[in-house]
Amino acid sequence: MDPRLHAFAKLIVNMATQITRGDNVLIQISDHGHDFALELYKQIIEKGAQPLLVSTPTELVRAFYDIADSKTISTLPRHYYHLIQASDVIINIRSEANTKNLSTVPSHKISARAKTLKPIQEERLSKRWCLTQYPTMGYAQEAAMSFAEYSDFVFSAILIDWEDQLRVMQELKQILDQTDEVRLIGDRTDLIMSIKGRNAVVGGPDNNVPGGEVFTAPIDDSAEGHIYFDLPAIKYGQEVEGITLYFEKGEVVDFSAERNEALLRSMLETDAGARRLGELGIGTNRGITTFTKNILFDEKIGDTIHLALGRAYKECGGTNESAIHWDMIKTMKYTQGSRMIFDGIAVHLSEDGKWVTES
Amino acid sequence: MDPRLHAFAKLIVNMATQITRGDNVLIQISDHGHDFALELYKQIIEKGAQPLLVSTPTELVRAFYDIADSKTISTLPRHYYHLIQASDVIINIRSEANTKNLSTVPSHKISARAKTLKPIQEERLSKRWCLTQYPTMGYAQEAAMSFAEYSDFVFSAILIDWEDQLRVMQELKQILDQTDEVRLIGDRTDLIMSIKGRNAVVGGPDNNVPGGEVFTAPIDDSAEGHIYFDLPAIKYGQEVEGITLYFEKGEVVDFSAERNEALLRSMLETDAGARRLGELGIGTNRGITTFTKNILFDEKIGDTIHLALGRAYKECGGTNESAIHWDMIKTMKYTQGSRMIFDGIAVHLSEDGKWVTES
Repeated sequence: MDPRLHAFAKLIVNMATQITRGDNVLIQISDHGHDFALELYKQIIEKGAQPLLVSTPTELVRAFYDIADSKTISTLPRHYYHLIQASDVIINIRSEANTKNLSTVPSHKISARAKTLKPIQEERLSKRWCLTQYPTMGYAQEAAMSFAEYSDFVFSAILIDWEDQLRVMQELKQILDQTDEVRLIGDRTDLIMSIKGRNAVVGGPDNNVPGGEVFTAPIDDSAEGHIYFDLPAIKYGQEVEGITLYFEKGEVVDFSAERNEALLRSMLETDAGARRLGELGIGTNRGITTFTKNILFDEKIGDTIHLALGRAYKECGGTNESAIHWDMIKTMKYTQGSRMIFDGIAVHLSEDGKWVTES
Repeated sequence: MDPRLHAFAKLIVNMATQITRGDNVLIQISDHGHDFALELYKQIIEKGAQPLLVSTPTELVRAFYDIADSKTISTLPRHYYHLIQASDVIINIRSEANTKNLSTVPSHKISARAKTLKPIQEERLSKRWCLTQYPTMGYAQEAAMSFAEYSDFVFSAILIDWEDQLRVMQELKQILDQTDEVRLIGDRTDLIMSIKGRNAVVGGPDNNVPGGEVFTAPIDDSAEGHIYFDLPAIKYGQEVEGITLYFEKGEVVDFSAERNEALLRSMLETDAGARRLGELGIGTNRGITTFTKNILFDEKIGDTIHLALGRAYKECGGTNESAIHWDMIKTMKYTQGSRMIFDGIAVHLSEDGKWVTES
């Protein structure tokens, strides 16, 4: 077993889900991660809680889509629903051997099944839950790294000094909660939006491990200006590169992309809310320095921001509605000239992790 | 994948559990058998049913006993209980990598946990359920075979002509249901017992795969005579070899064993019912020809009988009560001179599978 899995499991059990005596804990994995599940299992039993392991290898998920008729796709697995309902804590460990397992499944089947499983998702989100990831060859390949490199990447992201990271995020939340207007200046970018009266949320390590972002919801009609995203935006396994969005009164009025612009256009046409911002997030986890086409990590990269088109989070006080929520990430390094300006004051995280303001 | 797993899965899905549209099916495995679980999964989805896979590797089970305190051992895992309760069909696949995984766990812990989990067991037995086995290195080692030999052994036992085997078992049930007195004659054996008014049950392929036994419950005070068991009787992973039991008025009045007699003595001293017969079973599965220290297979070996000391099955109309139910198996080959005599008429299964009577 990778010795780092012990500390990883401690983080999940003690900090992210805070397991205590009597908890009914469900651990869900896909292909790999049995050694990590065992380590979690041990620590959960030590707490006096009851663990149960459900494994759904990717080949089983694929078999479902290949074989199930429409009636089966639209039938709720009642036993699974009751399992989720009777659980106190649900730990989902992404551990796929092959991230492209569902690539050739018609998307209408995937969305129909997601709709069927919605009561299960809602039930799950009403519990103490955590989504995390175990390093696999599949994720390493997706990130174009060796497995050893990718394992180092994952543990560098997860095994940071969380007390210090929480301080960094709490301080940023306080700044955002006092801010009315945000201006982002950077490469091919000058965008203003209002977050007045909205609530900034400190992200993790709780529902997401790794955590490392603070996010809020812009006022729907407030965005004015343009922004260029240097990192690819990913949807349905496809990458849209070099996106530029132009905003007027909160709405995207023009756009371009260096590659796969058609997908960007079709996403923007989803509904009215898809042309407005649902999220402004700021990544603070400097344990993550590489973009790996994996939103669980990418949106937390230190010294980045992300904007999402579409649905806003209720917990931020957001009001924008849409069928989509599509994150787009931009590098915002202060040392390379990017600036986040809150009510006229430029704010950045110094190299030693302090928030620095300058008028 | 071993191509025989396809037919194995068909037997489980179509015959043993008769899965139909809308069934909530729980598949449970331990260490191995993921390829078999996938094959089952596919066939279950084809039926329009909803499969879910729970895996509990032996190392996890062991971790529980090593770590759990007494309060944790005596706490019911509520989420697991609700999962079982909401399932229509439960398929348990024995697939252990190491059959000795729990050997050094104090038995009081195992019995305490079994007591805690009793509501789950009872719930499970009220469903359509099936217990079967996947070949592993662990079972091969236990049987002193190579893995290839052991796989052949398992599939020879499971992939027999079940229609013909059901006919053989049904005919034997009819004979037993009309029989008052059974006499067993063989090597160092002459034992008489009554099964008058009792109900013979045809075993499988339903709750057990493989099936291949017909069993009933002797009248409590009827056994008279003696019997020698040429095959080892196994309890708590220990073997007792060469057992001879002497009966008067249904009770064991004397006994001996060629090895491990002390365990036999302590078992007989469990309670009053432990000294009486709870079961007479007749093995009819000629796909099984080898004793492998595995009761799921051993009790169905063709041309054997087994007697159990202790608790009788209610479905046979049995009345004997005990904390134990301990099966002992004896080879009863007609060609080697053994005789089963029902109300004075010797009955045996011919080489071509017909029940032959001779006065």
